[in-house]
Amino acid sequence: MSNLFSVINHSIVSEKEALVHVSDLSIQRGYGIFDYFRTVNGKPVFLDAHIERFYNSAKSMHLNTSVNSQELKDLIYKLISANNLPYSGIRITLTGGYSTDGYTIASPNLFITQSAFNFNKNNFANGIKLISYEYARELPLIKTINYLQAIYLQPLIKSKNADDVIYYSNNEILECPRANIFIVTQENELLTPANGVLKGITRNTILSFNEFGGKEAAITLEQLYNAKEVFITSTTKNVLPVLAINDQLIGTGQPGIISSRIYEKLIQLKEV
Amino acid sequence: MSNLFSVINHSIVSEKEALVHVSDLSIQRGYGIFDYFRTVNGKPVFLDAHIERFYNSAKSMHLNTSVNSQELKDLIYKLISANNLPYSGIRITLTGGYSTDGYTIASPNLFITQSAFNFNKNNFANGIKLISYEYARELPLIKTINYLQAIYLQPLIKSKNADDVIYYSNNEILECPRANIFIVTQENELLTPANGVLKGITRNTILSFNEFGGKEAAITLEQLYNAKEVFITSTTKNVLPVLAINDQLIGTGQPGIISSRIYEKLIQLKEV
Repeated sequence: MSNLFSVINHSIVSEKEALVHVSDLSIQRGYGIFDYFRTVNGKPVFLDAHIERFYNSAKSMHLNTSVNSQELKDLIYKLISANNLPYSGIRITLTGGYSTDGYTIASPNLFITQSAFNFNKNNFANGIKLISYEYARELPLIKTINYLQAIYLQPLIKSKNADDVIYYSNNEILECPRANIFIVTQENELLTPANGVLKGITRNTILSFNEFGGKEAAITLEQLYNAKEVFITSTTKNVLPVLAINDQLIGTGQPGIISSRIYEKLIQLKEV
Repeated sequence: MSNLFSVINHSIVSEKEALVHVSDLSIQRGYGIFDYFRTVNGKPVFLDAHIERFYNSAKSMHLNTSVNSQELKDLIYKLISANNLPYSGIRITLTGGYSTDGYTIASPNLFITQSAFNFNKNNFANGIKLISYEYARELPLIKTINYLQAIYLQPLIKSKNADDVIYYSNNEILECPRANIFIVTQENELLTPANGVLKGITRNTILSFNEFGGKEAAITLEQLYNAKEVFITSTTKNVLPVLAINDQLIGTGQPGIISSRIYEKLIQLKEV
């Protein structure tokens, strides 16, 4: 453990004191939501979008926050100031609280933790390999803490020499456990799954780049395999080219030109 | 909080000291498994079956326990002795541990907690009402801590004046969030869903009662609605008659004769 600080409910505490009683509904029933954003040179990136999604997730899961968004921001800035970690990831977690019957939502517990994170610019050129797996998250529009399936699949992913998994359902691709996916078709259309996925902040930012004409669409597994380029997106990954899926090369098996242009624009915007 | 004790890993601690760091994978990613059994007159009920399932769940989820089953039993008996609660529920939870990257399984944390539980014999006559909902747990054979969907649905269940939900998938019924389901057909066949469900200890016990001829089968929603009797089973509920589903009465809308006989046999066996 480091010398960092964390937030528990309304208080800043040393990281080692960031403790939760086992009766919390996250431990009892996996019930909670979170969000995660980065700081670059000490400044939170896309903070408002993350906070908006955090409150939407909380509301959808019937979790009442005891702080409003301005109070939450104040806590975040206090933590940033206390920790003095210019390049970091900050996670805000809200759980079902200390439930007396182990099932009913109580007064939610809020935790904010920060850890060093340095973006590695070498990852883009290396790209990644995915395997496909049939699964759809139960509440896909909500950023819940449920990653059971994803972590359960880690040994399978490693055994296939892959880096991550792309979920699909009814022959349509959905998302990776911690990232959205985009394809560039042979007709140079930029597409990302429309439904049944978490609306990632990086995904939404890329869709807002007019010059690439990104669109939401239903995308089949066949379209994925036949794409000219495939890449995944997330707060920590920015844009990562997918060079192979289930041992089939995508395009030339090299990062594509559109992926590269979107990546450059994104890291310029985020000042990574 | 009470004056009870809990177990954390190898130690007996006061219940208020049963604390977990927020880096635990249960809080970060909802990753953990558990089991739950009762004590009746100070004696654990079906302990070996619960412990066997606990270790099976742990193994399936790639969680290494630091105690073997005899050491686990010793800890359980120490806790029972310390708490001196003759009628109780005991929960054994195993989580993904303190993960340094918030994603990779670490050395699992073990918690054992005990709380008073008195079986209410009035519940049988009152019966319950269910609603149906299309959902299948992602890893149904494993007793994971994921109850996101179940707790998320609580307001809907309440708004329908129901007590619980029966999940179904592809028109076949599966399970309630914390109970198995049985039907008695018009031909007096006793059936319970064969696949895609947790193999409950009470369910398995009822299937072992030769005189009722219980069988595992695929059961459609239509078979459920047209059943002569329906009941759910669990460690805490034993047998609870389902008198209505989605506002449709089951049979006469009263607890059935076969349900009643199975209930009597079960509580005699458990000495509840």
